[in-house]
Amino acid sequence: MSLKTFTREEVSRHASENDLWIIIDACVYDMSRFVDLHPGGAYPILEFAGKDATEDFYGLHRQEVLVKYARYKIGTVANEEPKYEIRQAGALSKVPYAESSAWMGFKSPYFKESHFRFRVAVREILDGMALEARRFEDEGVKPTDEFVRTLGEAGILAANIGPGPHLKGIKLPGDVKPEEYDYFHEMIVHEEMARWGVRGTDDGLIGGMVISLPTVLNFGSAALKAKIVPEVLSGKKRMCLAITEPYAGSDVARIRTTATRTPDGKYYIVNGVKKWITTGRWADYFSVAVKTDKGMSMLLIERGEGVETKAIKTSYSPSAGTALVIFENVKVPVENLLGKENHGFQVVLSNFNHERWVMLTGASMGARLAVEECFKWANQRKVFGKRLIDQPVIRNKLAKMVASVESVHNWIENITYQMCHMDYFEQAEKLAGPIALCKYQSTRMLHDVSDEACQIFGGRALTKTGMGRVIETMQRTYKFSAILGGAEEIMADLGIRQAMRKFPNARL
Amino acid sequence: MSLKTFTREEVSRHASENDLWIIIDACVYDMSRFVDLHPGGAYPILEFAGKDATEDFYGLHRQEVLVKYARYKIGTVANEEPKYEIRQAGALSKVPYAESSAWMGFKSPYFKESHFRFRVAVREILDGMALEARRFEDEGVKPTDEFVRTLGEAGILAANIGPGPHLKGIKLPGDVKPEEYDYFHEMIVHEEMARWGVRGTDDGLIGGMVISLPTVLNFGSAALKAKIVPEVLSGKKRMCLAITEPYAGSDVARIRTTATRTPDGKYYIVNGVKKWITTGRWADYFSVAVKTDKGMSMLLIERGEGVETKAIKTSYSPSAGTALVIFENVKVPVENLLGKENHGFQVVLSNFNHERWVMLTGASMGARLAVEECFKWANQRKVFGKRLIDQPVIRNKLAKMVASVESVHNWIENITYQMCHMDYFEQAEKLAGPIALCKYQSTRMLHDVSDEACQIFGGRALTKTGMGRVIETMQRTYKFSAILGGAEEIMADLGIRQAMRKFPNARL
Amino acid sequence: MSLKTFTREEVSRHASENDLWIIIDACVYDMSRFVDLHPGGAYPILEFAGKDATEDFYGLHRQEVLVKYARYKIGTVANEEPKYEIRQAGALSKVPYAESSAWMGFKSPYFKESHFRFRVAVREILDGMALEARRFEDEGVKPTDEFVRTLGEAGILAANIGPGPHLKGIKLPGDVKPEEYDYFHEMIVHEEMARWGVRGTDDGLIGGMVISLPTVLNFGSAALKAKIVPEVLSGKKRMCLAITEPYAGSDVARIRTTATRTPDGKYYIVNGVKKWITTGRWADYFSVAVKTDKGMSMLLIERGEGVETKAIKTSYSPSAGTALVIFENVKVPVENLLGKENHGFQVVLSNFNHERWVMLTGASMGARLAVEECFKWANQRKVFGKRLIDQPVIRNKLAKMVASVESVHNWIENITYQMCHMDYFEQAEKLAGPIALCKYQSTRMLHDVSDEACQIFGGRALTKTGMGRVIETMQRTYKFSAILGGAEEIMADLGIRQAMRKFPNARL
Amino acid sequence: MSLKTFTREEVSRHASENDLWIIIDACVYDMSRFVDLHPGGAYPILEFAGKDATEDFYGLHRQEVLVKYARYKIGTVANEEPKYEIRQAGALSKVPYAESSAWMGFKSPYFKESHFRFRVAVREILDGMALEARRFEDEGVKPTDEFVRTLGEAGILAANIGPGPHLKGIKLPGDVKPEEYDYFHEMIVHEEMARWGVRGTDDGLIGGMVISLPTVLNFGSAALKAKIVPEVLSGKKRMCLAITEPYAGSDVARIRTTATRTPDGKYYIVNGVKKWITTGRWADYFSVAVKTDKGMSMLLIERGEGVETKAIKTSYSPSAGTALVIFENVKVPVENLLGKENHGFQVVLSNFNHERWVMLTGASMGARLAVEECFKWANQRKVFGKRLIDQPVIRNKLAKMVASVESVHNWIENITYQMCHMDYFEQAEKLAGPIALCKYQSTRMLHDVSDEACQIFGGRALTKTGMGRVIETMQRTYKFSAILGGAEEIMADLGIRQAMRKFPNARL
Repeated sequence: MSLKTFTREEVSRHASENDLWIIIDACVYDMSRFVDLHPGGAYPILEFAGKDATEDFYGLHRQEVLVKYARYKIGTVANEEPKYEIRQAGALSKVPYAESSAWMGFKSPYFKESHFRFRVAVREILDGMALEARRFEDEGVKPTDEFVRTLGEAGILAANIGPGPHLKGIKLPGDVKPEEYDYFHEMIVHEEMARWGVRGTDDGLIGGMVISLPTVLNFGSAALKAKIVPEVLSGKKRMCLAITEPYAGSDVARIRTTATRTPDGKYYIVNGVKKWITTGRWADYFSVAVKTDKGMSMLLIERGEGVETKAIKTSYSPSAGTALVIFENVKVPVENLLGKENHGFQVVLSNFNHERWVMLTGASMGARLAVEECFKWANQRKVFGKRLIDQPVIRNKLAKMVASVESVHNWIENITYQMCHMDYFEQAEKLAGPIALCKYQSTRMLHDVSDEACQIFGGRALTKTGMGRVIETMQRTYKFSAILGGAEEIMADLGIRQAMRKFPNARL
Repeated sequence: MSLKTFTREEVSRHASENDLWIIIDACVYDMSRFVDLHPGGAYPILEFAGKDATEDFYGLHRQEVLVKYARYKIGTVANEEPKYEIRQAGALSKVPYAESSAWMGFKSPYFKESHFRFRVAVREILDGMALEARRFEDEGVKPTDEFVRTLGEAGILAANIGPGPHLKGIKLPGDVKPEEYDYFHEMIVHEEMARWGVRGTDDGLIGGMVISLPTVLNFGSAALKAKIVPEVLSGKKRMCLAITEPYAGSDVARIRTTATRTPDGKYYIVNGVKKWITTGRWADYFSVAVKTDKGMSMLLIERGEGVETKAIKTSYSPSAGTALVIFENVKVPVENLLGKENHGFQVVLSNFNHERWVMLTGASMGARLAVEECFKWANQRKVFGKRLIDQPVIRNKLAKMVASVESVHNWIENITYQMCHMDYFEQAEKLAGPIALCKYQSTRMLHDVSDEACQIFGGRALTKTGMGRVIETMQRTYKFSAILGGAEEIMADLGIRQAMRKFPNARL
Repeated sequence: MSLKTFTREEVSRHASENDLWIIIDACVYDMSRFVDLHPGGAYPILEFAGKDATEDFYGLHRQEVLVKYARYKIGTVANEEPKYEIRQAGALSKVPYAESSAWMGFKSPYFKESHFRFRVAVREILDGMALEARRFEDEGVKPTDEFVRTLGEAGILAANIGPGPHLKGIKLPGDVKPEEYDYFHEMIVHEEMARWGVRGTDDGLIGGMVISLPTVLNFGSAALKAKIVPEVLSGKKRMCLAITEPYAGSDVARIRTTATRTPDGKYYIVNGVKKWITTGRWADYFSVAVKTDKGMSMLLIERGEGVETKAIKTSYSPSAGTALVIFENVKVPVENLLGKENHGFQVVLSNFNHERWVMLTGASMGARLAVEECFKWANQRKVFGKRLIDQPVIRNKLAKMVASVESVHNWIENITYQMCHMDYFEQAEKLAGPIALCKYQSTRMLHDVSDEACQIFGGRALTKTGMGRVIETMQRTYKFSAILGGAEEIMADLGIRQAMRKFPNARL
Repeated sequence: MSLKTFTREEVSRHASENDLWIIIDACVYDMSRFVDLHPGGAYPILEFAGKDATEDFYGLHRQEVLVKYARYKIGTVANEEPKYEIRQAGALSKVPYAESSAWMGFKSPYFKESHFRFRVAVREILDGMALEARRFEDEGVKPTDEFVRTLGEAGILAANIGPGPHLKGIKLPGDVKPEEYDYFHEMIVHEEMARWGVRGTDDGLIGGMVISLPTVLNFGSAALKAKIVPEVLSGKKRMCLAITEPYAGSDVARIRTTATRTPDGKYYIVNGVKKWITTGRWADYFSVAVKTDKGMSMLLIERGEGVETKAIKTSYSPSAGTALVIFENVKVPVENLLGKENHGFQVVLSNFNHERWVMLTGASMGARLAVEECFKWANQRKVFGKRLIDQPVIRNKLAKMVASVESVHNWIENITYQMCHMDYFEQAEKLAGPIALCKYQSTRMLHDVSDEACQIFGGRALTKTGMGRVIETMQRTYKFSAILGGAEEIMADLGIRQAMRKFPNARL
């Protein structure tokens, strides 16, 4: 679309409520139809009728508002160039430390061409879906079926599960070949999803799947895999992991949900209640820990008769689908057993390292996102005539943020590198400790970063919409990272106990 | 009501879905009508049909659930005594450090008999209103008119404004006489309201009023006072302070809301937008900062034609009434001027020390409430067969919490004592620094306490209802204390700059 | 002495190496004989021959240097007044927060006239001895007998043991009567000694005595008391507590020093080694934990045959007298038993609360001293043309320091108030927990304060002499407070375990 | 030497003071001549005459004591194997996290075979010199000429200066070729020297040289280089950087040391005082900042007439040679000018990034050393019947330590990798910010690590010798890293200001 060109004088003649043009960064917008829809009231727009509102606009609105209301743009100002860049979908940020080292232009031995290609492709896809993702988060609704299928078709869902045979036949972003797909690619996809800054929606879309689908991939029968994996990876069905119970919490030994075989031995009858089940509210499949006669087993349960799910209110968005899941006389074919009967522990434990690693990549990128937001805000926000960034105390806060994010991130890359060079069993043997400690460190870091970011954004950090929205979300949700998948204290302790397993006969 | 007595054997005979009795702590409840209403599903109740559910109940529910559903109680178990005490309305907590020093049984030179009487009376009133207050918070609704009037009639609203002539004729809780009412009484009322643990509702009820009514009390005409003060203190009308604007934030010099005199000089015409106005959504009166011809002035504006308020979504409850307030050609009598025209700064500044002191009393009690919750939870929650409190790392966390709360609280008492012995001007002169530093310290402390409390509660700290509800609310809202009324960094800086004003000619 | 008056022109004529006058703050000094003795070399003095060196002098030297070299002062500058105040012995500091609340001019319900009188008197005495105390610290030597006796005669030693019958007949500073002497007086004396800023010397002079003499006062025979107490309180003899052993550390149950009765039952023969014994190197009396036949006992051992003491090198000054104490066949009369045989635990435990309280008063005052030093330094030190205090990041650090010191201090006053109103047994019952937690908090605070203070002083904080000397000492020694008398982790744990002893039957 | 073999019974027969054998870890020692020399007194040895002292020995002594007193070893116990491994010179530690990732057996893309070879060779050399290095530190003496020459001959001194033409002809440890020597090799040599744990001696040996020799290498005349570089790198002469002055501190613009040309233009006459000059006390060459007629210049000054150096007492060992350096009419040939006259700033600034990077590698390894010490101590120390490591609070502390060390270390490796791929100017352009922030982070980390390490070691952390000696040294000296080479606050600020230099036209 070729836009018209106007002089500032021309624009100034459209200054009445019914004929109201304004200039924002060398572009002309006809706000006549919008003025009464403005969430902030008509008054602030009227103030700028026929005038240049650039500074005020950017003082109050995120750039995405311009994208959202692009339809009101009618032209540009003659002989003027926009002052502010608008990041294009898929583009890297030029804000300092907004991208990790390799993407800031530094050399890295970890990333190859396919990783660079992959990140750009993933970001382009996700940038295009960001506004919708945010809508789910803000409205607290179920991410639509179409949205999930779009992720599936783009290969994003499969990418979140990591390298493995499940990628066969999947078209991955950036045309990365399934056989070259490694944990650094996976790290990238987790980071990119974290960049949406919609923690609840993100968990609702991916969180449940990432921790539950592996139970089928690794412990399900061939038939079960053939049926379920394609449905889930294509986004046609949703899946969750249902372990925790109201009373037992994460103490798996105390779960009470029972699965008793029918007399003909063909079914289990399942009764019990699961709580705090991410994605549970709209899951089609549940990977469920149950008590069987001599121990604990894992069963794949399909939503159907006797399965009821209720929303649980949490600090983050209801779009996470956090649920109370009630099983009442649910009939489950014995073929749905995951792993061996009474050996469910093995299934539960098998994915812990991966889950924690996924979480720490997200935690780290969440903190990095806060760095970007704070840099921008501190650069553009003026108080008492000076930019925030001109205040030494603000710079000191930013320094703390950057330094702690970079430290943790580099450790994560090291661990990811090890994962790329170890099979499952070696990972389990050697990386359980480092991953636990790194998760601990990444969430301690988040605690500090969120603190500083809130103080930099001030009142905006308390407001769910507008300039501080990303920071508000972070402060409200970072404890999910610090508690789920192994609380900080547990991680710290596990890390040291793992280390002690091979303690040498050394003395001071 | 005298209750029947049953043997355990008798109870055990009521074990079907339609005739379902259970025992909780030596009391018998008929759950037949409730079983299908149970938010956690019927299953967990059916498990205990005819049996003793005490441990499970207390593992999952707060005691207040027993109070709420007292109507299902049909009797007690013969020859058994309840094991768990239920705190009566107005009673002090016996949990360690749940009350401050003087109320834990230690001596205090600060508190007199009237303070003890006052706290018990206030707590009794507020305990009786707690469930309703929580309902507002949870549902995010406007606290009802009746609720506010009840607070007004009980003298609670007036008590929140502190000592002063406005108390004349007010019947205060515990029959404290207006003339003996001092800042320690006021501290108590703020603390007791903080014990509700409903940060948003609390701000909606009291926050707006505490910072706005003094502008009328101290700077309004006699007529204005005569009209407004009784309405507000009786709870018939609600009031808020409207200073901050979208672009200006708290930089009062840059506000844009204008008030221009009508040609006859009898009215101001007010136009502009105010943002982040606590209580604004349902305020009847607005104490508003406006630009007048030669400076800034404060005006009392009544809701009416041209006044529009819209909700702003924040991290805490919508029941705070946080609003965008739009004034469009609002006609305000010049008699509504507060202080002198163009001298509004003085009005704005006059209440800062009091506002901050109010905030820090609340911050401190909020943290203390977390101590109580964590002690209880750590004592009753069992993981892997041991109470949480039996884990040394948990005790270490509790120690940190207690030690930081006690330190700050004792400083607050000292400052409050000074306030009792200084007139307004001496307070302004000598206490601005200490109050600023103490507010800084109290919110740093909150940051740490919230952190530890979340880790102690684990997943419960992420859930809006149930066991961790108070902690979830704290983590989600403590940054309001750290940012509003003067952000931490501003407070720190102010504290030291105040100190430097009288720096001696001393050298190392 | 009346001093001469000179014009600046007159001074300027004495500008050669052999006739070298300089002006410092309106005073004239004849440096002719000193120029070659100047530790910083002759050059910097020659630069100012005949000139005004005020700014340079104060940029590099502590004011005490002027006092030390007062003999070179020959007159004053005509018609000029000194710009910088010199604090007189006994005077309060006017630097913000250099004194605690009551002494900064705020009201306090805790302190009476006798406390004010007492502090001034103690400070006057100690100010007069400060240079000598520092000399011991710097040179790492034994505080002289004369010095200790001077403290004894001034009543300072007795004052450090607190209220009690041992004060009978003692003339206390400020003529405070023994019977009105309370724990607030004692707090003052500990604080004032901490103001010397000579941690090692302080422990050497008082630390050993404070924890050992009570074993005699409370558990010694009348004869033992009659002999030892006057000797120690008058400063004629020194005393220490000898519990810890090389291998056992503070695990009293594992000590190996044995005391076996001689066949005639009149003596114990003591063999063993004690380590880390403060004051031990020059103690005359040792209160020693020994293994007797059926348990542990405490014995008073006099230095004599078979007693050998060796210095142990620690982070602080050797003037603490930290020693390895070796007992080899030492013959001790059975009358020297403290308490009952085999019941030594009671003796050891009896003084813990008091010891910890003494330590936390010192920790708090140590931190406050750092506040004073940092305020002064930040005010006088100029970097790149501005005072340090003009840098917002420095003000932020000072704010943190002040806020944490004030918080802890107010808690200490509260605890001290309780001590004044409880007998020994009630203190043991109710204050063990709060004192432990307060000690924990005070040393965590010290850790932060020392950190900030070092950063404010920069390179000076690394140098043992000169401007940063107090801070250098603090950073090097604050861990003594955090570890001795019960390490932080032990204190935290004890505090919570004490609290749990009376946990009510309360539930969330 | 083949040792004899004894039965335990045989050993038990040597149990008198004059014929005293003991067993330590399956080895037999004849202590007859040593018993009276034992620093802990004869008693503890007599207790074990003829017996096995293994547990007690290791409870009180570092393993190096066995090495030191190997001459008393007379044999081994028949049919017994030592329980505790003695790390051989050059060997890697097997204690968890005592070595960084690549050396713990993890893969690394950064390190090649030559790096592994280099580390082992360097460690073997330094292990052999460790006892002597510690002696200098403990006694506070000048490291001997022989010691320095040994370092020089081994190529260690040259290795500390990094890659560059100065390596030509140098035989490096592990036969690494000068042309393959990169910054990862240099990192290794800094880390290995930090493993000595003798901060003062280390600075005295290397610190001064690392920051001063580059001024000659990069800005000296060919003749100057030809003379000085070989002398310094071979350890025949010592060198230091002399910038800071008593009054000016690090504010180079205010230095007062003057250099005025002689009338013939062939010499400068230098007068002035430098303070806090590391290695200064025994330096042969001084690279000195002086005021010349139109600005600041750098001069190479040889010790000689008019040069006087005096010790300055600091928190760390006098073996650092920290000095006051006085120049009085020192005659310096103009050929000794480094860089251009009046352009000394360039010389001073040129080495900052390298200096900071050197410091952060040392800070990180210092912290790692503390991790190793704490792991060992927590594993071997028993309190109340349990190992420290069996206490959850101790494990929590270790986890914090490990996690923060690993995070920072991985960032350092990334930065080092960049250095390997950038020339000097690109480093200056792109790495000044990251290096500054990483130095900030590494010293914040040290502050926390030192804190936890002290608490784990308890009283031993206060004692200069014995078990806690490394930790005692760290706590006493870590502030050198946080202040020298750019204080934390300066580093934080620089990091962010560098980042802002390329801030894009981006908006939130």
